[in-house]
Amino acid sequence: MDSLFLAACRGQPTARPPVWLMRQAGRYLPEYREVRSHVGFLELCKTPALAAEVTLQPIRRFGFDAAILFSDLLVPIEAMGLEVVFTEQGPSLPSPVRSARDLQRLRVFDPWESTAFVCEAIRLLVGKLGDTPLVGFAGAPFTAATYAIEGRTGRHFLETKKLLHNEPETAHLLLGMIQAATRAYLLAQVAAGAKAIQIFDSWVGVVSPEEWDEFVCEPTRALIAAVKAAGVPVIYFPHGATTLLERIARVGADVYSIDWRLPLGEARERLRKGGAAAPALQGNLDPALLLGPTERLRRQVATIKREGGGRGHIFNLGHGIYPETPVANVEALVRAVRGE
Amino acid sequence: MDSLFLAACRGQPTARPPVWLMRQAGRYLPEYREVRSHVGFLELCKTPALAAEVTLQPIRRFGFDAAILFSDLLVPIEAMGLEVVFTEQGPSLPSPVRSARDLQRLRVFDPWESTAFVCEAIRLLVGKLGDTPLVGFAGAPFTAATYAIEGRTGRHFLETKKLLHNEPETAHLLLGMIQAATRAYLLAQVAAGAKAIQIFDSWVGVVSPEEWDEFVCEPTRALIAAVKAAGVPVIYFPHGATTLLERIARVGADVYSIDWRLPLGEARERLRKGGAAAPALQGNLDPALLLGPTERLRRQVATIKREGGGRGHIFNLGHGIYPETPVANVEALVRAVRGE
Repeated sequence: MDSLFLAACRGQPTARPPVWLMRQAGRYLPEYREVRSHVGFLELCKTPALAAEVTLQPIRRFGFDAAILFSDLLVPIEAMGLEVVFTEQGPSLPSPVRSARDLQRLRVFDPWESTAFVCEAIRLLVGKLGDTPLVGFAGAPFTAATYAIEGRTGRHFLETKKLLHNEPETAHLLLGMIQAATRAYLLAQVAAGAKAIQIFDSWVGVVSPEEWDEFVCEPTRALIAAVKAAGVPVIYFPHGATTLLERIARVGADVYSIDWRLPLGEARERLRKGGAAAPALQGNLDPALLLGPTERLRRQVATIKREGGGRGHIFNLGHGIYPETPVANVEALVRAVRGE
Repeated sequence: MDSLFLAACRGQPTARPPVWLMRQAGRYLPEYREVRSHVGFLELCKTPALAAEVTLQPIRRFGFDAAILFSDLLVPIEAMGLEVVFTEQGPSLPSPVRSARDLQRLRVFDPWESTAFVCEAIRLLVGKLGDTPLVGFAGAPFTAATYAIEGRTGRHFLETKKLLHNEPETAHLLLGMIQAATRAYLLAQVAAGAKAIQIFDSWVGVVSPEEWDEFVCEPTRALIAAVKAAGVPVIYFPHGATTLLERIARVGADVYSIDWRLPLGEARERLRKGGAAAPALQGNLDPALLLGPTERLRRQVATIKREGGGRGHIFNLGHGIYPETPVANVEALVRAVRGE
């Protein structure tokens, strides 16, 4: 029998929505901070036993209905041959991609070799998680490309836009290479034991409808189709881009993760208008509500459960949990979702 | 006879769309940089002759169909009694508003006294602009409140959200005070000679539908109604919030300025669904296109003119022009809008 989580991914009705939280393994947890006091962020990502341990921490504490591999969006970018440095201000790439010539430095890597630590962490986790499904993940082609091009987390993403507009062929090639590399990377995660895949398009909120149509839609669609063909459901998270949902429906995901800017009922309607027959939805509590009073939190959880409709709905946040979130508020959230 | 710009504000058909650009007086212009090499940013805002001079620069160079007063969103915040410091990293408020007690430091100021330099700059400009209408402006209540609460340009706007959720009464009071102060400030701009008012809601893209309904909509609507009652058209710019356009229609603006994330035709349809009978629109070229090839720029200008429909459409950017924009590309843009 499918878990609650996988049933909801397949669009089936569930007695209650399954619940997990983006960045559930992270700095808001004292046990995570304890581990991090001994190892650096990248070392943690690359040490399978430790990555598996922090992945398990929120499952033990809250009994979430899905685990998500502890890793980083930049892992496959580095494996493609771009140097990545992690600083206090976030990731940084000393030699970003700015021209056709820079593409020569990139390669579609063998994930069982270059990112063997990810496959190994998944293998370890599958043995320990029992019935709790493990979600693997990667950045979407556009979001991965922004890191490769900007060399850091962008603000206006002008380098990315300049490449799209001034060298559209180079942009297509880059997005295609990232798509191919990410495809192999995600298929390896599935082969190692991931039961579902989430594709994070963290920065797609900066694209225009024209850029979506010309550059972003096709590599995203192709990547999702390839992972679906491996038999696992795919969740696509187009953060900050709910205004484009009708267009976004064309990527063909099983589940659309919705940020907090749009009620789930309206999101479903817009996705249907775009051609997604019966899209499952994930979301969409504003993580800032976890910093406020419990009463408001419980009210919003009730609203979201109603909007979710009891079928094909995975309860989650509309964005990653903030490090300053009190653990007690996460407990209150989980109880509210479970109707306790 | 109304100028092209005012006719479009009133929803009338125009032979071509009037055109001006957000931040058209600014760092991309060598003559602006020349002025700024002698004076600081705040001094420039507060010296009427200089503020008027840089306001006029882009009118002289490009013959834009509207001028916009050179000033800053923080000017009325400072006049309300909050200290504002301008640094290389942007504006900063050493003592932000975080509690009911902090409200005691705020006052609804007399704009003819505390911001006399703004009224004087407008008076000077009206004498020099001839038939070109001058647009006055201020931040919307929510955006102004984020500066007051965060103490700087926010990222996740967590302090703002915490105040909304933990102290909703304080948040309502703060938004109400800002609304009252901004109302007086904008009415003074109209009395001094501004022919239209733009209200910038630069950070409203972070609010949820529930926050929009509970906190943001009403003070925005009240402010717009008060300025409209003075007989000038009001342009509302809800940057990054096109997903909420049906709700946003309730603010009752004459013109909605649309960012680049949604085609104008769809924006008009969503606003109509929300109850705006025949909204005029402003926008919506992605300013990043001014950093790319002219051919792509001209193609997008043609698309936007078609979407604008030749009636009630003011051509503008979907966001302020970037400092690195080549002047030649602005010239190409203006020619394309004029059909030259």
